[in-house]
Amino acid sequence: MTREKLYLYDTTLRDGQQTQGVQFSTEEKLRIAAALDDLGVDYIEGGWPGANPTDSAFFDDVPKTRAQMTAFGMTKRAGRSAENDDVLAAVLNAGTAAVCLVGKSHDFHVTTALGITLEENLENIRASIAHIVSQGREALYDAEHFFDGYKGNPDYAIQALRAALDAGARWIVLCDTNGGTLPHEVGEITRAVITAGIPGSKLGIHTHNDTENAVACSLAAVDAGARQIQGTLNGLGERCGNANLTTLIPTLLLKEPYASRYDIGVKRETLESLTRVSRMLDEILNRVPMKQAAYVGASAFAHKAGLHASAILKNPTTYEHIDPRIVGNRRIVPMSNQAGQSNLRKRLAEAGLEVPKDHPGLSLILDKVKEREAMGYSYDTAQASFELLAREVLGRMPDLFEVKRYRVTIERRKNKYNQMVSLSEAVVVVKIGDEKKLSVSESMDEFGSDRGPVNALARALAKDLGPYQEMINDLRLVDFKVRITQGGTEAVTRVIIDSEDKNGQRWSTVGVSANIVDASFEALLDAVRWKLIRDGAC
Amino acid sequence: MTREKLYLYDTTLRDGQQTQGVQFSTEEKLRIAAALDDLGVDYIEGGWPGANPTDSAFFDDVPKTRAQMTAFGMTKRAGRSAENDDVLAAVLNAGTAAVCLVGKSHDFHVTTALGITLEENLENIRASIAHIVSQGREALYDAEHFFDGYKGNPDYAIQALRAALDAGARWIVLCDTNGGTLPHEVGEITRAVITAGIPGSKLGIHTHNDTENAVACSLAAVDAGARQIQGTLNGLGERCGNANLTTLIPTLLLKEPYASRYDIGVKRETLESLTRVSRMLDEILNRVPMKQAAYVGASAFAHKAGLHASAILKNPTTYEHIDPRIVGNRRIVPMSNQAGQSNLRKRLAEAGLEVPKDHPGLSLILDKVKEREAMGYSYDTAQASFELLAREVLGRMPDLFEVKRYRVTIERRKNKYNQMVSLSEAVVVVKIGDEKKLSVSESMDEFGSDRGPVNALARALAKDLGPYQEMINDLRLVDFKVRITQGGTEAVTRVIIDSEDKNGQRWSTVGVSANIVDASFEALLDAVRWKLIRDGAC
Repeated sequence: MTREKLYLYDTTLRDGQQTQGVQFSTEEKLRIAAALDDLGVDYIEGGWPGANPTDSAFFDDVPKTRAQMTAFGMTKRAGRSAENDDVLAAVLNAGTAAVCLVGKSHDFHVTTALGITLEENLENIRASIAHIVSQGREALYDAEHFFDGYKGNPDYAIQALRAALDAGARWIVLCDTNGGTLPHEVGEITRAVITAGIPGSKLGIHTHNDTENAVACSLAAVDAGARQIQGTLNGLGERCGNANLTTLIPTLLLKEPYASRYDIGVKRETLESLTRVSRMLDEILNRVPMKQAAYVGASAFAHKAGLHASAILKNPTTYEHIDPRIVGNRRIVPMSNQAGQSNLRKRLAEAGLEVPKDHPGLSLILDKVKEREAMGYSYDTAQASFELLAREVLGRMPDLFEVKRYRVTIERRKNKYNQMVSLSEAVVVVKIGDEKKLSVSESMDEFGSDRGPVNALARALAKDLGPYQEMINDLRLVDFKVRITQGGTEAVTRVIIDSEDKNGQRWSTVGVSANIVDASFEALLDAVRWKLIRDGAC
Repeated sequence: MTREKLYLYDTTLRDGQQTQGVQFSTEEKLRIAAALDDLGVDYIEGGWPGANPTDSAFFDDVPKTRAQMTAFGMTKRAGRSAENDDVLAAVLNAGTAAVCLVGKSHDFHVTTALGITLEENLENIRASIAHIVSQGREALYDAEHFFDGYKGNPDYAIQALRAALDAGARWIVLCDTNGGTLPHEVGEITRAVITAGIPGSKLGIHTHNDTENAVACSLAAVDAGARQIQGTLNGLGERCGNANLTTLIPTLLLKEPYASRYDIGVKRETLESLTRVSRMLDEILNRVPMKQAAYVGASAFAHKAGLHASAILKNPTTYEHIDPRIVGNRRIVPMSNQAGQSNLRKRLAEAGLEVPKDHPGLSLILDKVKEREAMGYSYDTAQASFELLAREVLGRMPDLFEVKRYRVTIERRKNKYNQMVSLSEAVVVVKIGDEKKLSVSESMDEFGSDRGPVNALARALAKDLGPYQEMINDLRLVDFKVRITQGGTEAVTRVIIDSEDKNGQRWSTVGVSANIVDASFEALLDAVRWKLIRDGAC
């Protein structure tokens, strides 16, 4: 069987930007475009020139990419020629090799939303696409509401596609605009379109995730004969998002029948960068990466059940559909009350603690974990705290420093301008070797805002750690989660802190106490200790 | 065409608990089971009796449900009889009407993971299922790794299913354990199983979301003839999660061909509670609800300003595949327009604040909410704080008391027995009418344990509120959630407090500050104020 080319069309920069709360800067657009180009997609839809200042600025100095850079716009309006349509002119002026125009294929929308005749709409499609082609550009026709349109009036929907095709469009893209079409329908209708004479080699598919089927709908269209898939990184997009290219790319490369049937622009070797690219987008959006994301999520290869976790050690394929390293991700075998010794040894080894089989320390650690979990601790995510606990039990905890005492005061009162203001002050006393160090810090940041008691404590703690000071200068608290647990007769507070350093190393620690500040301090202390050990302070 | 029954089997409490970081308390399990039962699923898998203390406690006092309560376990081990298998005995002792046993159908796993012969495994399945049936229970056989097993050795995989069927299993569940099977394969293999003589009316499907296809795979199995779908609320589950019942339920009820072909336990009228149930689970897990979740996400019907938002006003079906109200969700359109206002009036009326249409206060409230949300506040769940905010804007906030200042000190040091102990002390100064009242409290409870600074503040605040004292004596803090939000240039802390009084009345309030104690105090203050107003203090 000859392999066919399947084209990937990314619209993160255009449809992805329709997401609630998302507004890329021009710099961010450039960064994302470069990452997409490195990844190997075939088309990058950069935005709608003329629709907003950022998109216009992006196209004013459009980056040179291996991928076909594409400008998005809409078919000309009725009552003027394509040459005289200013919206179309702005799109063409962007000077991209490819232009994608959205148009109507659903008779209902033509008459109600546009308020023109069905024939006028066909003429708008025809003239607009012909104009793009006459300018030497590759033309794509984006058939908005196609599936609903086809269900309402198949003849007219096909006529709209044919108008674009006859005018010279390279691609006809079937859009499920409101995301309500299920995979089997997408398959059937795509097949019907091909039967009606629109060649599959010119058909694209554009789906949304409103029924959690955007990926399946894309695959169904390919199965039916479509040869271009439109989607976004991390499934970004309006409402529930667009088809997720971060999921589709590894599926097409690794799973049958796609792997043996099709060539895509992304190479197997490049796939290793997928997790990194996915996290980069979240970082730009300042979003917490979705742990359960397919292929690239932090939990995508995390195993918990006792049965599963021990089987994983024998044979990873048991509970892993692919090797996580292929997509640049990694396996997590966390602690849990069902975990056996072999998991534990594996986890300790990952933390650099080699412990021989049947070492008595192993069951002591398991007992300690169980005891702590009953108190409200949780070591599933707090790997760093788990490692410290294990070191303690094994007698392999280096002597770093000891906190003798601390005190925090939080005050809220009126200032001299009669405004309510708050301020926290923390005193921390540590002993390093024989030296006792008193540090005091307040919670005011450089803008004069109170950052709270945990911040004041963190600063006082990090203010003077003597020989260790330099190692923790780049420690940064990136997330902070608090939960009340029913750990006994009275509720206690569990705090989980995620920390990061300048190398992008990230680790989680846990603290538990009825006192929220004390729980935070415990997690903070673990974060500092873990970094000192990891960076070789001992 | 006669309608057929499609069975919904929920495993949130068992497979959902395999999620990294998830450990339900018995109380939480009961709450979730009650919600599932109200929703109308047919089976609730409560856990694995004997596997851990929480699951055992749940079954010790198993709730009475309309749904079939199911205990999970595994087929007996080789070398002992079903009657003498202690794991099986623990499962049966739970006394549930239905029992689901996981077993091997993949020859490779039988010989390598279990280390027994293929015939021994068949005998284990047969004897275990027969034993369950002989005890008068409904038996389900959970065929682990079925799809991989079928691809490796179809004959043996079918033999395993037949062993369970012949022994009297009501259901044979085809599990795609590692989540790697794509929809078209699930459809083909399910059809092949039926062709091999296992009736579709006895087939269930259990999928995972590792390729983002769990929902599509479930639908493909139903299309092929399976009649039971297993899944979890919000797609909770190990790695990338299980098939999402929160998505499947509305799809089956609202989309063709499912809507006209099948009856499911969930009724169309009940669907309105779906969004609430989904949020309840997130609240129990202290997770930020996924905005882009299908049907129930806060963004699922959010439209960004522009073409879409104006088209939506003309005709909602343009960009909405269903009416959001059907699933208890709501449309989000730019705040300024008419749709935003009517939502708001509805919410105010629920709080007992009747505001006439086009009242200028309505847009003032919307502005204020927008401003506050930009600061990190969230009024989705904190209805009580929203009500207070609206009262403030409308000039309908009664004059209760004013907090002039407060101070909290948290100390941790060694006591005279050389133990590290902590103690918090809070001073609160309030003005009621012309009277100024100073109260001081410490955080020590009756058992001599430190309950922390928020507790000390709550006590000091509630110590002497003069004429209002009696009304707040029964106020009790029942939950406390903290999140770091990226509300601006610097991270801030959002605290949501759930309070309760002796009548079982429950309300939520929110506080935001970079200072966690201050954010807590703000939420606390709202909780007190709301109760005073609700109980008629003014």
